[in-house]
This record gives sequence, structure tokens and C-alpha cells, in this order.
Amino acid sequence: MLDHCAFVLVSDARMPLALLVVFAAAKLLAELCERIKIPGIVGEIAAGVVLGPSVLGWIAPSDMLSLLSDLGVMFLLFRVGLEVKASDLLRVGGTATAVATAGVIAPMALGWGLMTWWGSTTTEALFVGAAMVATSVGITAQVLASKGYLHLLSSRLILAAAVIDDVLGLLVLAVVSSAAKGRVNLLDVGLTTLFAAGFVIVAAKWGTPAMSRVLPQVHERLRVAEGEYALAIVFLFALSLLAVKAGVAAIVGAFLAGMALSESAGRRVKDFAHGTAEFLIPFFLAGIGLKVDLKALATRDGALLAAALLVLAVISKLIGCGLGAIRLGRAEMLRIGIGMVPRGEVGMVVAQLGLGIGALSSHVYAVVVVMAVATTIVCPPLLSLAYRGAESVREQAEEVLHI
Amino acid sequence: MLDHCAFVLVSDARMPLALLVVFAAAKLLAELCERIKIPGIVGEIAAGVVLGPSVLGWIAPSDMLSLLSDLGVMFLLFRVGLEVKASDLLRVGGTATAVATAGVIAPMALGWGLMTWWGSTTTEALFVGAAMVATSVGITAQVLASKGYLHLLSSRLILAAAVIDDVLGLLVLAVVSSAAKGRVNLLDVGLTTLFAAGFVIVAAKWGTPAMSRVLPQVHERLRVAEGEYALAIVFLFALSLLAVKAGVAAIVGAFLAGMALSESAGRRVKDFAHGTAEFLIPFFLAGIGLKVDLKALATRDGALLAAALLVLAVISKLIGCGLGAIRLGRAEMLRIGIGMVPRGEVGMVVAQLGLGIGALSSHVYAVVVVMAVATTIVCPPLLSLAYRGAESVREQAEEVLHI
Repeated sequence: MLDHCAFVLVSDARMPLALLVVFAAAKLLAELCERIKIPGIVGEIAAGVVLGPSVLGWIAPSDMLSLLSDLGVMFLLFRVGLEVKASDLLRVGGTATAVATAGVIAPMALGWGLMTWWGSTTTEALFVGAAMVATSVGITAQVLASKGYLHLLSSRLILAAAVIDDVLGLLVLAVVSSAAKGRVNLLDVGLTTLFAAGFVIVAAKWGTPAMSRVLPQVHERLRVAEGEYALAIVFLFALSLLAVKAGVAAIVGAFLAGMALSESAGRRVKDFAHGTAEFLIPFFLAGIGLKVDLKALATRDGALLAAALLVLAVISKLIGCGLGAIRLGRAEMLRIGIGMVPRGEVGMVVAQLGLGIGALSSHVYAVVVVMAVATTIVCPPLLSLAYRGAESVREQAEEVLHI
Repeated sequence: MLDHCAFVLVSDARMPLALLVVFAAAKLLAELCERIKIPGIVGEIAAGVVLGPSVLGWIAPSDMLSLLSDLGVMFLLFRVGLEVKASDLLRVGGTATAVATAGVIAPMALGWGLMTWWGSTTTEALFVGAAMVATSVGITAQVLASKGYLHLLSSRLILAAAVIDDVLGLLVLAVVSSAAKGRVNLLDVGLTTLFAAGFVIVAAKWGTPAMSRVLPQVHERLRVAEGEYALAIVFLFALSLLAVKAGVAAIVGAFLAGMALSESAGRRVKDFAHGTAEFLIPFFLAGIGLKVDLKALATRDGALLAAALLVLAVISKLIGCGLGAIRLGRAEMLRIGIGMVPRGEVGMVVAQLGLGIGALSSHVYAVVVVMAVATTIVCPPLLSLAYRGAESVREQAEEVLHI
């Protein structure tokens, strides 16, 4: 046949093929998981593992997929933010800070301890600890949103703690990376943290009143079609950009943007954001799976280390975050602890950074990535179990916090 | 501050910055255009021209933007397809074929004639003619959809003719490229066209009944959340891929996928597709503008040639497509002719192909790209004018066609 002779806008078949394979595989495995009572999200991550270098090797991580993946997690958090009232989150701020702080100290200490015992250098041990600190709230938020649990107290606590966790994680990473490079500049570290915390506090506290005042007025005057959704998207990107500039993750900005709009945005904007997220999120989830290479588990050493790290990653968040929420009783402690377990893509970014500056060996890097994905896969089923009968606990817990 | 020390999922600020700038500029100029009674779509294309190499040079065409642009035009046509009944389109098939055929012959002849008179080689003249054949239905569809005119007879005729135009354009391009390479293999050309036409006919004719039978049954049994939308997206990518394999544009597949689902998909799927399209389309429109470089107009020769090509591009479609619809009266002829004017990204792809095989000089290539963008910018305002009072003509025209 005639090559290059088609009126192809997409210059070849590779783009639609890759998108079709990734999206369809993610949704197919999600459906299979739901049928055996496992949250579909596990299937979507597993689809990435199956398509990636570990099993079939059909799809390699590419710029195209990582763009869709980044957009996917941004819209995921934006959509979750749209369903969360800032006042609800600020009200649990104190407890959330306790949860986040204890949830940073425990994994850091246990990760560092294990790696030191294993024979790593101090720098490597510190970096593995830092990678174990990071919580990827996207996974938990997706599970809670899909089950309709976002309004529960523990869900709000998890979201608030995850945002604070991101700021604390930045602090830890700043200290660890400076240490790896030789010296810690306390002024720099302090300024970075201050800047990041300031951004989060300002956006969380004044985002909603500002948007409630601005959005309806501007929207009313717009003549362009679907102007309200366009404004919301501009705000989403603007806050994501500011977040990156302030030193926190773009997804924290996306979440705060959604939350600032949660009271002023209409149903149509929320539906549109939901639809856009539904298209993009599978690329984020499968993208996590694509990045893992199970060959790291081929040696007995690697497999043991990965298993030990996974167990510690789960236990450390359960203990740390659970203790931070001790006032709320055992059931809520368990939920909050499990909700903070997934390290996902955030853990991977830290590991990549460590590999980049030579702090992590490539072997330990691969094992940390396996740990990050494994925590992400074990979380949703555990979370489903922990949330059984959650509705009934609600009033009880709210009573304890006097809200 | 500490570089590379942020918990950035998006590894740097460039991604959100580029997306913010392109999206916000497109929507801002769209708003300004609407205020001076020009369709917003013109502003979105103009935003690309302003941001691109012609004026500010802030944004260069990149893989990232072209992925979003490709997805944008796919969702644009998918969304339009969702609002169009296949039976409505098939009913006007005869007239649409006449419109498309005459609308291919006139621009080809005039384009070839102008370039021959200008002193081009036969190959170059043929390629410019082929680039003038291609209709980019996305622009017209967007204008008609945003004004709520999709149900009108002339709109259906434009859409049907644009799909047929794509098949005919493939035929023209196949002949022209083989001629440029030295010999025309009629068997190859015939097979290619047969394959493309077969795909379009099968998808248009049996897509709707097949989906009306399959979708509700499958959807009912799915356990995964928002399974219906996931199915629709899988179908969209599958048909786009098949279209590319069959030799037509991916967007023709996207349109046929939407049309096949138009009777079975629920309101939720349509809203979600609409929301996803609203996010992606500005990248498609601005992307068209980004690709033009007005420096081609710096010489007197270039400016004159571009002006002549633009005038012929508009006139040739008005005459050709108008004549094909002569039975419907002057008002409908005008609308249909104008609706087929935009060459947009399809004309650019043909020009790129010609540049690639050495058939077009880089100077003529740049001029053809300017022509393609200019036709796209002049169409929406002309279309708005031509559709004034369109509702009243409707019954009259339908009477002529006995439908």
C-alpha cells in the first residue's frame, strides 16, 4: 500500500495505538479486579506493570504517556479538591499536623535503620528514608472519592495530613540532599520550607473566599462559551505552577485550586472536571506500573530487601499516622494510617533524585521503586476493608474533635 | 533556593507554565473576539500566531503541545459526532458526494493553474493543488456546534461532504505523490481508495445499529465506575486507529465513533466528552496558529502569492461546493461553500508531505501554510454571517430534498 499517503492528522498509528492499549488494558483489569472485590485502581496500576518492561514489554514509558500521566494526577487532585470544603480541612488542621509529623518521623527512622543494618552508607540510608516519607495522596483520594467517603472525618484528615506531609517531605528531602552534597545550609532549608508552608496556608485559608468573590463576578461577564470551566482550568494551572515555584508538588496546587473553587463552581464545572479526569487518570495509574521493573526482585537479596522495605513502609505509616490520631479511636487510627501508606509516584521521584546525585545505587533505586509501587497496590484493598461500617463511626469521631 | 529539591511530580515548572500560557491566551483572545462579534475560535487560533515564531516567539511547537492538539481535534470531532445521527447524514449522502466531488475538482484545478502561471514545476503545482483540496472540518464543526446549528440541513451536508472529501483527498494525494515519485501505480491508488471508502461506509452505516445493540448490554454488566464513558473512549481510540490503518484521518474515525454512539450514549457520556473536549480543544486551535510563520509574507512575492492562494482557496470551495448543492438555493449554497473553506491542519500535513519529498520549495511550503491558517481564520466570521436567519430556510431546503 502507499506509505505516508494518508490524510493523517496524527502522522502515524502509534499515538492512537499506544493510547488505546494503555487505556483499554487499564479499564479491563480494573473491571476484572472489581469482579473479585478488589478496588479497580489496583487493576489500572497492574495494567502498567503487565504492559511495561516487567512482563510484556509492549509499552515503554514515553514523554507522551508521562504528560498524560502528569495531567491525570493533576485532574485527579483537582476533582477531589472540588468536593472538599476548605473549612472542613482547616478545622482538622491540628490533628492533621500531628498525623503528618508522626507519619514523617516513623518511616524516616525505620527506613534509615533498616538500610544501615543492611550495610548501606549513611547517605543511601537517609535517601531511602526520605523516599519512604513521601505520601502519594492521589491513590487514597481516588479510592475514597469513588466510594463516596470524601465527607467522612478520616478522609478529610487524610487529605489535610497529606498536604502537610508534602511540605514536611520537602523539608526532609532538602536536608537529606544537602547532606548528600556535603553540607547543610540551614538558612536555605528554612527559607524553602517557609515558602512552601506559606503558599499552602495562604491558598487553603484565603483561596475559597477569594474565589467565591471573584468567580461569579468574572463568569457573569464572560461571553466565551463554557467560560466558567475555562476559568477553572486557568486557575488550576496557575496554582499548580505557583506550587512548583513555592517548592511543593504541582498536585498540591491542583488540590488547593479545586478546594478554593469547591463552593463557587457550578455542577457543570464539576461534571466537566470529572469527565476530563476520567479520561486522563488511567494514564496516571498505568504510568505508575510502567515505571517498575520487577527484575530488581530476581536476586534473593533484592527480593528480601523489597519485602522488608514494603513491610516497614506499611507499618511505619500505620504506627506514625495512627499515633497522631490516637484520640479518635482504633478504627479511625487504622483508616488514617492505611490512607497514608501509598508512596506511588512521589516516592519514585525522590528515588530518582537520589539516583541522579549518586546517593542511591541502581540496585537500591530499583528496589525502592518496587516498594513505592507495592505500597500503592496494597493500599486500596486494605482501605476498603478498613472503611467497612465507616458511616457509623462518623458521629462518634466528630464528637471527640468537637466539630 | 534549593534547586531540584522540591517534591515535584512534574519535574519542573515548564509543563504547567506552557499549558497555562497557551490555554489562558487562547481563552483570553477568544473572549476579546466574542466582544467584537467575531467567533471566539478565531481568537484561539490567533493566540497561537501571537505566541509562536511570528510575533512573540514564547512558545515553540513541541511534542507535548502536538499530542494535546491531536487529542483536542479528536475529541472535537467525537463530540460533534455524538450530536449527529448517522441516518441524517446518510440521507443527504448523494448531495454530499456531489458537494465533495465538485469541491475537490475546483480547488485542485485553480491551485494547479495559479502555480503553473506563477512558474512552478508541474509537481509543485500539483502539490499546492492537493493542499488546497483538503477540508479541515473541525473548525466549521466547532462553529456550528457552538451556535447550536448542527441539526440544520446545511450543517449535516457539510459534515457528510467533509468526510467524503477526506476520502477523495486521499485519492488526490495518492495520485500526486506517486506522480512526484515518477510513476502512478493505479492498482495501489485504487486499492487505497477502496479500502478508505469501505471503512467510512461500513462505520457510517452499521456503526449506530451495532453500538445500539452492544453498548447498553455491555454497560449494564460493567462493575467499574463510569464504565460507559470508558467504553466510549476505547471505541473512540479503536475507530481512530482503524481509520488511520484504512488510510483516512484519525479524526474521521473519531467523528464516526461519536456518530455510532450518538443514539446509545447517555447524557453523562456526552457531558464528559464535552468537558474533556473543552480542556483539549484550545491546544488544537492555538496549535494551528503556532505552526504558521508570517516571515513568509516578508517578501512582496510571498505576500502576493499568499493573497492569491487565499482568494482562490475561498472562491474555489464556494464555487465547487456551492455548485454541488445548487438544488438547495443560493443561501444554502453559500453556507455549504463557506463551511468547506478551512484547510487548517489537513492542508498543513499535505504541504509538509510535499516538503518532505522535495516537491515543494521551502518558500512555497511556508506560503501554503499561511494560506491554510488564513482560510481557517476567515471561515468562522463568514460562516456566522451566512447563517443569519438560517432557521427559516430549514423547512424549505428539506422540502427540496424530500426528507
